[in-house]
Amino acid sequence: MKLATLKDGTRDGQLVVVSRDLKTAHIADGVALTLQRALDDWSFIAPQLQALYEQLNAGKAQRPFDFDPKRCMAPLPRAYQWADGSAYVNHVELVRKARKAEMPESFWHDPLMYQGGADDFIGPMDDILLESEEWGIDFEGEVAVITDDVPMGTSPERALSHIKLLMLVNDVSLRNLIPAELAKGFGFFQSKPASSFSPVAVTPDELDDAWDNGKVHLPLRATWNGALVGQPNAGVDMVFSFPQLIAHLTKTRCARAGSIIGSGTVSNKDSSKGYTCVAEKRALEMIAHGEAKTPFMKFGDTIKIEMLDKNGKSIFGAINQQVAQYTPPKAR
Amino acid sequence: MKLATLKDGTRDGQLVVVSRDLKTAHIADGVALTLQRALDDWSFIAPQLQALYEQLNAGKAQRPFDFDPKRCMAPLPRAYQWADGSAYVNHVELVRKARKAEMPESFWHDPLMYQGGADDFIGPMDDILLESEEWGIDFEGEVAVITDDVPMGTSPERALSHIKLLMLVNDVSLRNLIPAELAKGFGFFQSKPASSFSPVAVTPDELDDAWDNGKVHLPLRATWNGALVGQPNAGVDMVFSFPQLIAHLTKTRCARAGSIIGSGTVSNKDSSKGYTCVAEKRALEMIAHGEAKTPFMKFGDTIKIEMLDKNGKSIFGAINQQVAQYTPPKAR
Repeated sequence: MKLATLKDGTRDGQLVVVSRDLKTAHIADGVALTLQRALDDWSFIAPQLQALYEQLNAGKAQRPFDFDPKRCMAPLPRAYQWADGSAYVNHVELVRKARKAEMPESFWHDPLMYQGGADDFIGPMDDILLESEEWGIDFEGEVAVITDDVPMGTSPERALSHIKLLMLVNDVSLRNLIPAELAKGFGFFQSKPASSFSPVAVTPDELDDAWDNGKVHLPLRATWNGALVGQPNAGVDMVFSFPQLIAHLTKTRCARAGSIIGSGTVSNKDSSKGYTCVAEKRALEMIAHGEAKTPFMKFGDTIKIEMLDKNGKSIFGAINQQVAQYTPPKAR
Repeated sequence: MKLATLKDGTRDGQLVVVSRDLKTAHIADGVALTLQRALDDWSFIAPQLQALYEQLNAGKAQRPFDFDPKRCMAPLPRAYQWADGSAYVNHVELVRKARKAEMPESFWHDPLMYQGGADDFIGPMDDILLESEEWGIDFEGEVAVITDDVPMGTSPERALSHIKLLMLVNDVSLRNLIPAELAKGFGFFQSKPASSFSPVAVTPDELDDAWDNGKVHLPLRATWNGALVGQPNAGVDMVFSFPQLIAHLTKTRCARAGSIIGSGTVSNKDSSKGYTCVAEKRALEMIAHGEAKTPFMKFGDTIKIEMLDKNGKSIFGAINQQVAQYTPPKAR
């Protein structure tokens, strides 16, 4: 099934069930008010949402309405956990190579993962508001999963069954703030502003056989200012599957229901597949020509991130955002 | 006022108002079911909780009961943000000096802060469950604040008024996992298991003049296996105040209601004040004798973290925990 959260003036929005073709939706308030509440009691709630989804697809739901992604918040507008992996090690290797830094061999078998801010996600069509272009504004196209409660010490074998939903992510990054932050050793902070998510979250069965072995075997399409710049396959070159990332996450602690785990920027070794973040394009330019030619994003730039099924139909709806300038409050 | 969250079988527990002397409590369910819901609408809810608090202190509340910290969850059992600073730069300098690493001069004016896991906090008297002593189990005594909604780009001057509550923290750390994680550049992850919080969260006015300029000017007491090992003053050598930490946090994004910001391990330059984490004791030993003699925590060890007011009364109640061995689920 497909689920979305509509803006209704509240912090957590209104949970809706969305039809498979993304054309109609139905309020789920007889079942669960918010997606977090559904996840808190998933084994009880999910079958009820599924029943409503089947009615909606069959044209038998009582009060369907047109689904408008502009009205969407992130499926989880705020979450208790956002842990982002970097499973496409090819991407890490390229970016390091461009700045002439060796990548430790351990990166091929010990996942990179950072804890991200989860309190203020933005909707799929909301503006990316930032104060300065000088920060090096970049998009990052990713796939993410949402789990139920995962116990501490869960193996990859057991982790697979804890994946309840999938989404797409734009993990907005401020490239010019990253080097100084990583040098401090405490990871990303100011260099990772609010992330955006696809209009709908879907259960794994919606992906049919494209969901295999904890990976999504379909291209992720990134369109920057109207031009398709990347369509790497998310199932190719993903060195760590989602279950492996979850096992990494839960080595020393539990992950509670509603935890979101990201794949990291999708990237294929086959560079003809293009890029899902500008940093990778720039890294390729630096390696080839000694300097990066492609600038980062400017105010007014647009970015669309989407995934189509085998028949060319959008699975998650599109993240479709514009970068815009933010004016901070006065100092006093 | 003083607020706590009692275990009631739900994920977010039951919000209660606790008397100033920590002896009695009163259910707040006529006002707000959970602390997060109170924080979501603080300007409306807080005066109602304050009224109940005054009735309770005056012995006029309708259904008071004995307050038992064993029944407490963390005041926010799960939160949307846990951002931990490292404001006692003295601590950072000592730990680096012990491993013969230079500390960048910038650490004195650019705060260190990491994004921590916030989905699964543990109560003040819950066991610290971990699989292995080999991980180098350590406590870290800290002070933390909880904010309401803080806009992106908030100045330190404006940040002060966004601080609504204060707590104590035991930011449990796995020292032997830290070096490899920090070397990867993505910050702490497995080295920071679930944190524990004091039984009650208090409004700043409860600290009287000990709350000054965004710092808490009182000793933080750490008692390890029954021996007082540290009582550094949290108002001394705190290089970055809480408002400065919040301004750092919100440079490129908003912080939403219920965000928790930590001070980092409390540490004074005056080493006669002792330590609030074993790593600091070991650093001093390494600097003095070339090797660390004090081992990290073992299963069965206890740690108590508390703060007393000028009259020797506990302000937040005590974090009082035991380390115990955790057995993970089988691989399949």
